[in-house]
Parts: sequence; C-alpha cells; structure tokens
Amino acid sequence: MPRNIKLTLEYDGTDFAGFQFQPGRPTIQQVLEEALSKFFDKPMKIKSASGRTDAGVHAKYQVVNFRTDSKADLWQIQKGLNAHLPDSIAVRKAEEVPAGFHARFQAKGKTYEYTIWNDRVRSPFQLRYAHQVASPLNVSAMRRAAKILVGKHDFRSFCATEKPGQPKKETTRTIQKFVISKKGALICLRITANGFLHHMVRNIAGTLMEVGRGKLKADEVEKILKSKDRKRAGMTAPAKALCLVDVTY
Amino acid sequence: MPRNIKLTLEYDGTDFAGFQFQPGRPTIQQVLEEALSKFFDKPMKIKSASGRTDAGVHAKYQVVNFRTDSKADLWQIQKGLNAHLPDSIAVRKAEEVPAGFHARFQAKGKTYEYTIWNDRVRSPFQLRYAHQVASPLNVSAMRRAAKILVGKHDFRSFCATEKPGQPKKETTRTIQKFVISKKGALICLRITANGFLHHMVRNIAGTLMEVGRGKLKADEVEKILKSKDRKRAGMTAPAKALCLVDVTY
Repeated sequence: MPRNIKLTLEYDGTDFAGFQFQPGRPTIQQVLEEALSKFFDKPMKIKSASGRTDAGVHAKYQVVNFRTDSKADLWQIQKGLNAHLPDSIAVRKAEEVPAGFHARFQAKGKTYEYTIWNDRVRSPFQLRYAHQVASPLNVSAMRRAAKILVGKHDFRSFCATEKPGQPKKETTRTIQKFVISKKGALICLRITANGFLHHMVRNIAGTLMEVGRGKLKADEVEKILKSKDRKRAGMTAPAKALCLVDVTY
Repeated sequence: MPRNIKLTLEYDGTDFAGFQFQPGRPTIQQVLEEALSKFFDKPMKIKSASGRTDAGVHAKYQVVNFRTDSKADLWQIQKGLNAHLPDSIAVRKAEEVPAGFHARFQAKGKTYEYTIWNDRVRSPFQLRYAHQVASPLNVSAMRRAAKILVGKHDFRSFCATEKPGQPKKETTRTIQKFVISKKGALICLRITANGFLHHMVRNIAGTLMEVGRGKLKADEVEKILKSKDRKRAGMTAPAKALCLVDVTY
C-alpha cells in the first residue's frame, strides 16, 4: 500500500500561468511535479490539489497530495522538494495522511483574500499583492453588499461565462463567512466558502468595488445575484491581488 | 525666495545601489533627480535627504527636500513625479516647508526595522524583505541584549570599519528606543536613534542573531560595546531585511 502524502504549499503566483498543468507554460503543478520527479528519481504526478488557482494568483495555503512507495522521512521529502523548487514556491508542511485523503474532494472549506490598496498614490510594497483603487471606497456599503452574498446561493452571476458548447455547470455554493477589514489604505475581502466557481472571488471583488465607489447600491447586489446573469455583475478584478489563504478538511 | 519642498518617499531598494548618487549605477537619488528634472523641465537636484540608505535597503518613510521657483500645486508636483518614477519608488507626500528646513540636519530621530524570518522553511512572500534564520532564536535573550544598547553610547564596535587614511569619525549616538517583536515566524528589530553610523543597524542585527542562537551571551554585548572594536561584534546582516520606517523632525 503506497503512502499518501499531503503537502501544504505557499507560492507567489506572479510568474506562473496558474496552478494547473498547461503544455509549454510555467505552472505550479509542472514545477512541483518536476521537483517530485527529481527527488524520487522517477516520473511523479500529484493526485489532487484543493483547487486550481488562476494565472497570477498567489497562495499562502494550498494543499496537494501524492502517493509514493518511498520510505523517506517526511522532513527529508520536504527539504528535498524545497531544494528543487524555485524560491517563489515552498513546501511549508509535509504530512502522511490516510489512504482515502483527497486534497480536492475532501476540502470542506476554502478561504481567499482579495486585497485592495485604496489610495491615490501607489505603494511600492503593495504592487505585487494588492490592486490599487485611487478613489476612496465606502467600506460600510461594501460590507452591506457582502452580507447579501453570505449563505447558500446560485452564484451564476459571479461565475466566468461558460464557453459555447460546454455543459451547464452546477453553480450553487455556500459562502460561510465574508469579512471586510480595513487597516490604513489596505482593504481586505476575506471569503470562506465550501467551494468557488471560476473567477467567483474576482467577480465579487469587482462588483463590491463598484459598490464602494458608489456606482452601485449595496442592495442592487441582491438583484444581480438573483438575475443569474454574469453581465449584470461588475468586472473581474485583477488576479495579482487574490490569494488562497486556507483550506479546511 | 524659492519654495522649499519636502517629499516623503517610499521605495523598494532591491534593484538600487542605495540612495546616494553614484556614476553609472542606478540609485534612488539619480532616479528622483531625473524625475524632478523632467517634471520641472530643467536640471534639478535635491538639497538633502534624511540619510543615505545602502544598496538593497528599503524605505517606507524617507524624507528629502528640494527648492524650486515653480508655482506648481503640490499635488501636481507629487502626481507628476510619480508618473516619471519607476513603480518601485513613490512620492507618498509633498509639502511646502519653511526655507530653513533641511531633511538631514533637522532630523531628530530615525527609525529602522530589521526583519528576520525565523523558520527552517523559506516563505516566498518574505524573500525580498526578510532575512531567513533556520534555527530557532531566543527572543528573550535578544531583548536583554537590546536593552544594553539603549541610551547614549560610543557605537564604534557596530560601525563599518573606516578605510585607511580616512579621519576618525565621531561615533557616539543615542538609541532612544529598541523594541523586538515576534509574530509567528517573523521577528522585527525596531530601533529609533538620533542618528545611525554606517552599517550600525545591520551590525547590531548580526550581533543579536548570535545572541538569539546562543553563540553569544546577552551580557557579552556590553563588553563588545565597551571594547569599541568592530572585530568583536557579529557579522553585518544582509541589506534586504533593513527598512527605514520613520523620520521625526
């Protein structure tokens, strides 16, 4: 019976075309599988990841799992993988888990943070990880809008449009928690859900920024949600300000 | 009578050879004077800066001043300079100050932070701004050592060695405040003084890391201080973890 190993990863997604393998483009999965193959000295693949992150999206807490017959010590595996990975990716933890553990199917909740630098002047230290909005945002209005989205809803209005010919996806999800905090010029949208649709957080962030700017009233978000129409919601906010920060099992 | 303009700057020093102008190398001063010259459409120099930062050192709060006969609005000056500066430098504030204001001579206190990532695994998000120490540091011992350095002392032991032939410098300074905080794996050394010698914070950080590792006892720092001998103190800690965070007038 092979061992099932769970890895907790942290990565700066700036220079990657997202998590999932794509031929000819640098992805987290590709670089990780290369490191695994080098360390174990044979072709290795991961079994699953808690979810895909898009191009440019970061992770402070991403979970993957893979199987191996190797008897190597967990710290040796972690250290060895880190030695083969670029500085922008780190294995923060390596654990042995029961054979049935699956990083995606068993994730109960995931948390993303979307960070806004709300100031008319840029901050060199926020460039890589926050989206600048020059005009002052009304955080109270954004919080009222966020409240509307909490709970079990059909989030089709906030889901990337399906390509023609693709089957209609199930688009109901449950937002368990949605907290908006402000510290100086930094505004952080922290959303926990049982799962996320493609571009869901970035579309919610784009819509809430319109609420913050006063271009959209907080209660109009309820109409947008009920319309199940992607065209009614705001723009997809930039990827660089999005970070996967937690996964619970 | 020309106007005297005070600028508060923020910069990521990673790609610069320090603050001060050096022919043929990218420095903050050079890039700032180029932006000033472009904005005012004539050759411009700054009058002074609160202090020089070394190659690779960052600033969240650096102060400079320059004189101009232009009647341009302060926000127009700030916006114009930011448009001409690279993303890694920002003018965070522009103010008109009395003719006698001098960014260096009138600085009463400056505060630097030195950040340590104290974990055996790297963090991709800390790479640019923190120095990794893998073995656990004893923060209580580091705090005891820091306490010894607070006050008015001759800090010759913590000053970069003078080049032969250079006149002996005055090396007495007053550390007004020295706080060491720990949050998760991040340890921050925050030092406020009436002035700093060349490499002083980095040499203190290097010495305190030895105390934290247990290679040096906290009370030996007093002997090092009194010896006035650079060779007795610890190594010069890496520049990338140092940041100028405040200047008071």
